[in-house]
Amino acid sequence: MTEDLYPSRVASKPAWQPRIDPVAHSRWTPEAPISAEQHVMFERDGYLVLENLFSAAEVATLQRELERMRKMPASLETETLIAEPGSGALRSVFAIHAQNRLFGRLAADERLVSVARHLLGDEVYIHQSRLNYKSGFDGREFYWHSDFETWHVEDGMPRMRALSMSVQLADNHAVNGPLMVMPGSQRTYVSCVGETPEDHYKQSLRKQEYGVPDRDSLARLAETCGIVAPTGPAGSVVLFDCNTMHGSNGNITPFPRANAFIVYNSVSNRLVEPFGGRAPRPEFIATREGFEPLTAMGGDLAEGRAA
Amino acid sequence: MTEDLYPSRVASKPAWQPRIDPVAHSRWTPEAPISAEQHVMFERDGYLVLENLFSAAEVATLQRELERMRKMPASLETETLIAEPGSGALRSVFAIHAQNRLFGRLAADERLVSVARHLLGDEVYIHQSRLNYKSGFDGREFYWHSDFETWHVEDGMPRMRALSMSVQLADNHAVNGPLMVMPGSQRTYVSCVGETPEDHYKQSLRKQEYGVPDRDSLARLAETCGIVAPTGPAGSVVLFDCNTMHGSNGNITPFPRANAFIVYNSVSNRLVEPFGGRAPRPEFIATREGFEPLTAMGGDLAEGRAA
Repeated sequence: MTEDLYPSRVASKPAWQPRIDPVAHSRWTPEAPISAEQHVMFERDGYLVLENLFSAAEVATLQRELERMRKMPASLETETLIAEPGSGALRSVFAIHAQNRLFGRLAADERLVSVARHLLGDEVYIHQSRLNYKSGFDGREFYWHSDFETWHVEDGMPRMRALSMSVQLADNHAVNGPLMVMPGSQRTYVSCVGETPEDHYKQSLRKQEYGVPDRDSLARLAETCGIVAPTGPAGSVVLFDCNTMHGSNGNITPFPRANAFIVYNSVSNRLVEPFGGRAPRPEFIATREGFEPLTAMGGDLAEGRAA
Repeated sequence: MTEDLYPSRVASKPAWQPRIDPVAHSRWTPEAPISAEQHVMFERDGYLVLENLFSAAEVATLQRELERMRKMPASLETETLIAEPGSGALRSVFAIHAQNRLFGRLAADERLVSVARHLLGDEVYIHQSRLNYKSGFDGREFYWHSDFETWHVEDGMPRMRALSMSVQLADNHAVNGPLMVMPGSQRTYVSCVGETPEDHYKQSLRKQEYGVPDRDSLARLAETCGIVAPTGPAGSVVLFDCNTMHGSNGNITPFPRANAFIVYNSVSNRLVEPFGGRAPRPEFIATREGFEPLTAMGGDLAEGRAA
């Protein structure tokens, strides 16, 4: 059995633990696909914005495909579709790289994969992918979390050697509930409360904090790290480390948000049994079948469109 | 009976109507309490930020008084206290200028009153005041609205000759759900749907839009005007016209928001019977007893502290 180096949801009090793993898993060389400055920024801040990585024509192609899918969800596996609670409108599609040729091509794109390989210092595979579409006016917030905490406890990801890339398919404004990150938070592992705290009756207000970071930790982290909301035009990519604390506010503006979200994991960091001791989550949320190194593909996404 | 120049909540479809009243009700002269540039910006954008209008010492004094009241709400009229639904924590106190000496002093401060008089071109009185305190982590959003629409229909304010001043008692970040405004929206009066629309069964999703601006109007306004979130340190004042479309997103950050909110109305624009035909809202939300011109008070707020 693999040793649990990042225990969480087992104690009655939250705890902080320094990260054992590197943030950038390779050294920068002039051959790297990002600049030395970007490498250092990712290591320090736990996130990076690659502006206009995809051209306007490529973005338009991806947006058209997104609209096509929103109108014809029948072509997708039912369990991978997440609808808005109220309207039933399509909000997320999981395993999009496996279900759609164009988004499969995007996930394998050399511009993304080369950066993932460089920062993870290894061959990579796709741990999870999804397409997120958030209409305006009533976008919901996503509370603060470290992805790794969930992936470790619920999916069995052993170490911090994974990262997420969010390809912006709509302009990311400061006002439409963009992703917020706490720069530098990736260096600290905040374990969540699992057992019922001894003095639980005193803390009934914190009930819903089971499985999510506690408020004291978040306040201390925010005090130390600050909070930034990286913005950028459609075609930009926001990438962040698997342990960077992040979340987003709701969105009452009429401006929708849309992004293709791809999680790359090192092939040396493949999943084992979940450390939380329960059955693993389904394949479309966390693959346990696709650990082979991804083959990167070059060229323009706007040519050779998906059927 | 006063003629209803801004009908709303009477038709089955939303409508746009140009503003009949000026935005700035006086001309700028060198004696004005704001610069010519600020005057023009307010006229054009419907809002203005006056940075650091109050000193750090004054802000500290106001914050201490705020904390004192949060701990001793028994000293305040029960009906003026608005608690958080979940925790019961104090969220707003209405009629704060009438209940607390220091905040009464703030509302009469020459730095605020002189600007209100200038922009409204008249003596002014306080239509409404409140203290808002929003803790971090679970701050709720406020959906888009024009204050005037409500004040006109529910309170009987005849014309657009009022403005709001929000005195920032905490730093206003881009990420903690600050006030958002649509610059220029003050020139258009968007009436809200009142009668049940004829094709209502087709639009069940819009049910909750009764009494709030419709989504099409908001999308068109946002497209034309854009959306900005004015930020500034504690001690700054955000002022905006009574018809400026505004709202705010929720706040999951640990950073609280706090402000003292004062609405000044022209004494020539005093309330009549509500145009919506119902009984007026209570005195602590919209005064019908205090139409006398306000006497402005000079000097430093941090001296002569309230008991």
